Amino acid sequence: MGLLETIHSPADLKRLPRSRLPDLAREIRERIVGVVSKTGGHLASNLGVVELTIAIHYVFDIPTDKLVWDVGHQSYTHKLLTGRADRFSSLRQFGGLSGFPKITESPCDAFSTGHSSTSISAGLGISCAKRLKNDDSRVIAVIGDGSMTAGLAYEALNQAGAIHKELIVILNDNEMSISPNVGALSSLLSRTFSGKFIQDRRKEFGELLRSLPKIGSDAYSLAKRAEESIKAFVTPGMLFEAFNFEYFGPIKGHRIDQLIDILENIKNLDEPVLLHVATTKGRGYGPAESNPVYFHGVGCFDAETGNRVNCSDLPSYTDVFGQTMVRLAEKDPNIIAVTAAMPEGTGLGPFSEKFPDRFYDVGIAEPHGVTFAAGMATEGYKPVVTIYSTFLQRAYDQIIHDVCLESLPVVFAVDRGGIVGEDGPTHHGLFDLSYLRAIANMVVMAPMDEHEFQRMLVTAVNHPGPVAVRYPRGKVTGENPEKAEKNDQPLAIGKAEVLCSGDDILIIAVGHSVPEAVKARQMLAHKGISATVVNARFVKPLDTELISGLIQKIPRVITVEENVLDGGFGSAVLEAMADTGIAGFRITRIGIKDTFVTHGAKSVLRKHYEVDADAVVRAAEAMCRDLT
Amino acid sequence: MGLLETIHSPADLKRLPRSRLPDLAREIRERIVGVVSKTGGHLASNLGVVELTIAIHYVFDIPTDKLVWDVGHQSYTHKLLTGRADRFSSLRQFGGLSGFPKITESPCDAFSTGHSSTSISAGLGISCAKRLKNDDSRVIAVIGDGSMTAGLAYEALNQAGAIHKELIVILNDNEMSISPNVGALSSLLSRTFSGKFIQDRRKEFGELLRSLPKIGSDAYSLAKRAEESIKAFVTPGMLFEAFNFEYFGPIKGHRIDQLIDILENIKNLDEPVLLHVATTKGRGYGPAESNPVYFHGVGCFDAETGNRVNCSDLPSYTDVFGQTMVRLAEKDPNIIAVTAAMPEGTGLGPFSEKFPDRFYDVGIAEPHGVTFAAGMATEGYKPVVTIYSTFLQRAYDQIIHDVCLESLPVVFAVDRGGIVGEDGPTHHGLFDLSYLRAIANMVVMAPMDEHEFQRMLVTAVNHPGPVAVRYPRGKVTGENPEKAEKNDQPLAIGKAEVLCSGDDILIIAVGHSVPEAVKARQMLAHKGISATVVNARFVKPLDTELISGLIQKIPRVITVEENVLDGGFGSAVLEAMADTGIAGFRITRIGIKDTFVTHGAKSVLRKHYEVDADAVVRAAEAMCRDLT
Repeated sequence: MGLLETIHSPADLKRLPRSRLPDLAREIRERIVGVVSKTGGHLASNLGVVELTIAIHYVFDIPTDKLVWDVGHQSYTHKLLTGRADRFSSLRQFGGLSGFPKITESPCDAFSTGHSSTSISAGLGISCAKRLKNDDSRVIAVIGDGSMTAGLAYEALNQAGAIHKELIVILNDNEMSISPNVGALSSLLSRTFSGKFIQDRRKEFGELLRSLPKIGSDAYSLAKRAEESIKAFVTPGMLFEAFNFEYFGPIKGHRIDQLIDILENIKNLDEPVLLHVATTKGRGYGPAESNPVYFHGVGCFDAETGNRVNCSDLPSYTDVFGQTMVRLAEKDPNIIAVTAAMPEGTGLGPFSEKFPDRFYDVGIAEPHGVTFAAGMATEGYKPVVTIYSTFLQRAYDQIIHDVCLESLPVVFAVDRGGIVGEDGPTHHGLFDLSYLRAIANMVVMAPMDEHEFQRMLVTAVNHPGPVAVRYPRGKVTGENPEKAEKNDQPLAIGKAEVLCSGDDILIIAVGHSVPEAVKARQMLAHKGISATVVNARFVKPLDTELISGLIQKIPRVITVEENVLDGGFGSAVLEAMADTGIAGFRITRIGIKDTFVTHGAKSVLRKHYEVDADAVVRAAEAMCRDLT
Repeated sequence: MGLLETIHSPADLKRLPRSRLPDLAREIRERIVGVVSKTGGHLASNLGVVELTIAIHYVFDIPTDKLVWDVGHQSYTHKLLTGRADRFSSLRQFGGLSGFPKITESPCDAFSTGHSSTSISAGLGISCAKRLKNDDSRVIAVIGDGSMTAGLAYEALNQAGAIHKELIVILNDNEMSISPNVGALSSLLSRTFSGKFIQDRRKEFGELLRSLPKIGSDAYSLAKRAEESIKAFVTPGMLFEAFNFEYFGPIKGHRIDQLIDILENIKNLDEPVLLHVATTKGRGYGPAESNPVYFHGVGCFDAETGNRVNCSDLPSYTDVFGQTMVRLAEKDPNIIAVTAAMPEGTGLGPFSEKFPDRFYDVGIAEPHGVTFAAGMATEGYKPVVTIYSTFLQRAYDQIIHDVCLESLPVVFAVDRGGIVGEDGPTHHGLFDLSYLRAIANMVVMAPMDEHEFQRMLVTAVNHPGPVAVRYPRGKVTGENPEKAEKNDQPLAIGKAEVLCSGDDILIIAVGHSVPEAVKARQMLAHKGISATVVNARFVKPLDTELISGLIQKIPRVITVEENVLDGGFGSAVLEAMADTGIAGFRITRIGIKDTFVTHGAKSVLRKHYEVDADAVVRAAEAMCRDLT
């Protein structure tokens, strides 16, 4: 029986002698690699914090003390130590453990996370609450160096330093977020990483001091010269001290003994504390250590070799986006690309290599990325801003205020629209059709397949105003290769297409729900129900003319979208019909019904939340039944 | 003829000898006070930058060089110097000059602004674009110290420092944004404000250096001691240097000569530059200098005395909110209040005085404010987050991800919902009903008057999940004082009320559009059309039962809201009817039709955009005409 099997709560961990903790760390790594190789998940980040997590639980009393994991994609060890080891193999599967901390999953999860840079804000809120009720338990936020580039983290540091409440921020510095970091802060943090920089500066400074007798005793001029020298000497510590944090570190993050000692030392300080810990992503698993970008978030792989298994040869929508961007940029020198710390995740790797001057990685800074793109657009460029749907929520005001208000030609390539699968509720892109179509001047489209996707991108970069193209996570359809010859032809803005005709039911679908509608039509045909299927292409402007004409002929309508129903695509159809004065039709809107969607395989979720072909068939049958 | 009359473009300004510029500044101040006393507007901030604006236009070539005003509520002098003096008296009025920079108003307005902290992002985008096309004209962003507390500004600094393109950021430091600043950064900036702090530190440091012989020659230990000393020595300059900005200042912001000299010096530096300028809000106008918070944004006032004119005795919705918060907080110790740098603007002044421990001003940091509140909610508190509708757009992701996903009991007091008037398109709150109702677990309500508003606040703080209460800018109705006795009674969640009955038309209105609907009903009665008026109260959950029952009886429906129609309240009614299977009714949705609303008096805008009682009457008449 291994050590891990004996740990059912943090109390069990505390009973272990310190000397056994490295063995426990080894077991935990094996378990994580074993499970993630089968379930997929965030590997590199989790392997990087095994020792840090053990040390935190050894020193603090979770859940009395509150621990907030920033992003949360490094919480697997925490889950293993807090009574969830027996269910760990269900990770990220429907009905199983979440890949992120979740308040409702365990009292040890103080705050639900998934998006970056929330931990200091939430931790500060928890700390203020505890002080208000005279509860002196501790609050710890663990945040990566990448997450520190987001404005949200800065806003929280700024308030924390000002109100000066107890809060322990652990900066988990692995010199990268998902990809290697960008930004001035990153270069500042890395200055101390090796320790060499500080030593060099200290030496330089010492020499300046030793030269004192030669300069004379004018304190003012000497101080001025020292100040110049000091500029190069600014350390992360001083930066955080400037924000009134007490700074400790940097310390090595894989020596449990040392981690426990320093955590014991800072545990009871009644002020904001920042502990700077240097860790290695993928630590202890060769393939992940040597390729942490790939092993940030992975699908199934062979645990022995690290090689991928069960891979389809089809490219993903993300791949198609990346290739198309290169093709478009070759023709049009005004096209530039903007990503928020996700050059690989968004498929912009090839673009960044081919057009380094036209590629901008702004860091985990979606709001800034959008306003930056708006600035470039005012100078005649065509920025394509690529952000996952769920993260674009962070830039909503910038989309409205900086882009759409003046109708600037910024293209939003909205990756991961719809259900994304195992990452769950924090990562599904289920609001974008609603929140984007509310904005004047915006064009919103979603492709039914990889060919239409390319045509939409061509359309978007040639449109004189803001455009959003929303596409799903995952592989392309691989169907209808003959359509490829039109891939470079733009589409008419606001025009839908009728894919196939039938008299009983009118199915109007958008984006990657169109193939589900087509599949449903085939299934319905076997049941003697004939359906017209419309590929809407545009959510805004909607093809009201085509749709209203069809509805007048076939007043039994089903809309299909992978978005919340509230204010979504089906809602746009209702609005258009109301405005046109068309009444007297029946309509069933298929989409997400006012709930958050849990984690699990995409196909499982689509079935469970009734947004697949089967759901369309059931709706059509019910509608026909009602009529007879 | 004054100097200002001779200036029709920046070129005219450059022809003036430096010696005449102080006279020009005096004339500009008089003009601004004269016009703003009649039109209302942002006074204190504009008076603070008269000299700075003159100096910028004297040194740079606008519009070849690009000038971005952060927020833009300090751009009046800029407007006066760029060919808009003759139209300046039309400021903020319908059809007149905007109170903010607007790309479409003048080629000298490089970027449209209104919300805080966008200038460095936009300026960096413009600078990158210029470098790409080998255009070496300059880019200047002018940003206040308050705006620097927002994460957006930090994200931009971080990228600017990393890519190291030419960009001149002028930090306009008046030690306050709208109210006195909060946050660690603010205290850091103010360290150098008097210059005394730096001198004291230099002296201290000089003494340390002089003590060298006594300590001996161990460079390392001395450097370590020096490092300790340096921590207190961190200046804003060092902070910005840490972000790879070349720092200049702080310099006095009201000496034109000195401003021109330093701008000439930094004009051609090919790197990010930060010029720290100290200005006084309200400068040169006694009443504004002594009360800059009041004179931040004002209505009409007497230019001689600074006293308000034409004031109604009625309180505003904001006042009612502030009073109600005190009343609720007296009863419930778990209620806390969060504001993003607007204690006065949101009416929380009395609360902050009475409950200083339960009042949190997070700075211009809406995203952090929301996540901070979520943290407090996990500990059993009931945070009421008060943010203007238009600024709440900045926290959309935090509302979804940190509050609603776990259904935490955070109350959003959404002030300035609907048309706000003279501040115009950047400030209207016209998206909130759409973007909030898309989120699961959220309750969205809007009061028809001040009595219902208080009941909604009572309801909200007693609800176990997230709630948004959306209310308008301006005075309360002052009607139906008898309703006051029920002000402390909570409402049933999701229940609408029928205000009056009639058979011809069904008018369903929400929030401050309800009084318009009631007024329309009276007008219609004179025309022989009888209407039922429903006060919806809740946008989510909608009272589907009541509404569907009425629609079946009166299938001629008008919905009224002051929100965009796309995904708004009327759309929610359509969705509910579609889901209930009710068809065959006619509906006209009154609201904002897929456009941005310009600036002007609220009543003028409501008439122009057809969201007033007259519009309801016209819609009802058209509907009845169609039927006969």
